Amino acid sequence: MNEFSLAMQVRDYECDMQGIVNNAIYQHYLEHARHKFLETRGLSFAELTRAGIIIVVARAEIDYLKSLRAGDDFQVSVVASRPSRVRLVFSQVINRAADGQAVLRAKIITTAVNERGRPWFPPALEVLLGDA
Amino acid sequence: MNEFSLAMQVRDYECDMQGIVNNAIYQHYLEHARHKFLETRGLSFAELTRAGIIIVVARAEIDYLKSLRAGDDFQVSVVASRPSRVRLVFSQVINRAADGQAVLRAKIITTAVNERGRPWFPPALEVLLGDA
Amino acid sequence: MNEFSLAMQVRDYECDMQGIVNNAIYQHYLEHARHKFLETRGLSFAELTRAGIIIVVARAEIDYLKSLRAGDDFQVSVVASRPSRVRLVFSQVINRAADGQAVLRAKIITTAVNERGRPWFPPALEVLLGDA
Amino acid sequence: MNEFSLAMQVRDYECDMQGIVNNAIYQHYLEHARHKFLETRGLSFAELTRAGIIIVVARAEIDYLKSLRAGDDFQVSVVASRPSRVRLVFSQVINRAADGQAVLRAKIITTAVNERGRPWFPPALEVLLGDA
Repeated sequence: MNEFSLAMQVRDYECDMQGIVNNAIYQHYLEHARHKFLETRGLSFAELTRAGIIIVVARAEIDYLKSLRAGDDFQVSVVASRPSRVRLVFSQVINRAADGQAVLRAKIITTAVNERGRPWFPPALEVLLGDA
Repeated sequence: MNEFSLAMQVRDYECDMQGIVNNAIYQHYLEHARHKFLETRGLSFAELTRAGIIIVVARAEIDYLKSLRAGDDFQVSVVASRPSRVRLVFSQVINRAADGQAVLRAKIITTAVNERGRPWFPPALEVLLGDA
Repeated sequence: MNEFSLAMQVRDYECDMQGIVNNAIYQHYLEHARHKFLETRGLSFAELTRAGIIIVVARAEIDYLKSLRAGDDFQVSVVASRPSRVRLVFSQVINRAADGQAVLRAKIITTAVNERGRPWFPPALEVLLGDA
Repeated sequence: MNEFSLAMQVRDYECDMQGIVNNAIYQHYLEHARHKFLETRGLSFAELTRAGIIIVVARAEIDYLKSLRAGDDFQVSVVASRPSRVRLVFSQVINRAADGQAVLRAKIITTAVNERGRPWFPPALEVLLGDA
């Protein structure tokens, strides 16, 4: 399955003066879940970076539906797809554990760049797409 | 003019293990520029929050075009518009100072919610749209 | 027991351009462990704040012994003590799980302030000191 | 003069649910001021890192005297000294601009480590100590 879900919990320092999780922090949650997804396929983001395989986010579309608060438990799901030759897309949803409601939906469009900054699709990333 | 631009500089702690500014940090830059834009119109985000005027981001569309690195100077521009009754949209561009190149383009769609969580458009925000 | 330990793992976005966890992030880890410790005693930092019980850090002494890297598992321990009437001290150690080595030792000296900003010791916090 | 001062302003996203700057964020301010101080002596932290000169914080002693709030202007001062062969110490104070009051005092004890992780004092850092 090219799908993955990670359980997380809001930490107090991630909340802002409105008492809710700051918008930028959700991108940390999304990134963290993607990197944990990579790990389940035997890939380490840090090792890929050291090996010169630089994966960058080209576009993020994020719908903020509800707000998470201090202490909230939530799930971050990840589904990978490859809509074009050099694009690797992660469809992600954050669901609040207490009521199952979707808090955020995101489409994160990434691409790998080689050492000259040109986009390519490293074969190592194919494991993200197939059934495990 | 409903337009605003803020000069900023990348701080070392905003860079990640790839040596570039982490994706989530750009949302901080964008938010900071929006709040400074509000200030030029006599509005304080903190005071609005205390007064019960909660402005939330409903959707963010962010195109990451290039990467900023430690020490890079950049400009964050903000243009406000109101495409529908309760939506306040900020079109934002981050330009690298060294070569003027666009590093990031974003469309940040916000709405204000009242104390019952219902969207509305507080009259106080109208100053963001007209000519100063 | 007035002792507590929390298992955590370094997230990639917490590492800086040196490839190690940024110094400021350890304070987040320490704070998070303290707040989780409070929870085990039935106290919520967010609820205390809303109830007007503001706990502030007066002094932090932090010894950085080793560096944590991306993906490292670690334990954050907390021991609470009350060396003087209005001081609540947390002795904290971060140990790397892989080899058990101490990565960081900290003494976090806190005090509660009332609504006039005067230090006091809220009776609610006494549960942090006794045996559970 | 081995002294330096940097003007900064609190950004809204740096404030937590208590409406004040989160403790960890002050370490970011302190670090940023140190790195800007290095720049005034022709040193770049990023370039030093790339050149294999890794400066690490060995110990931080931070006294939190007052709290900064959203929008507060402040000064971060830096004085460098070398109390022992391999130690480089930065004495730092954060002063609120509005009333000049000291908000935070810190002693940041750093050391440089070579590629084998052994402490040493790179000659390049001597410019931090002498009169400019």
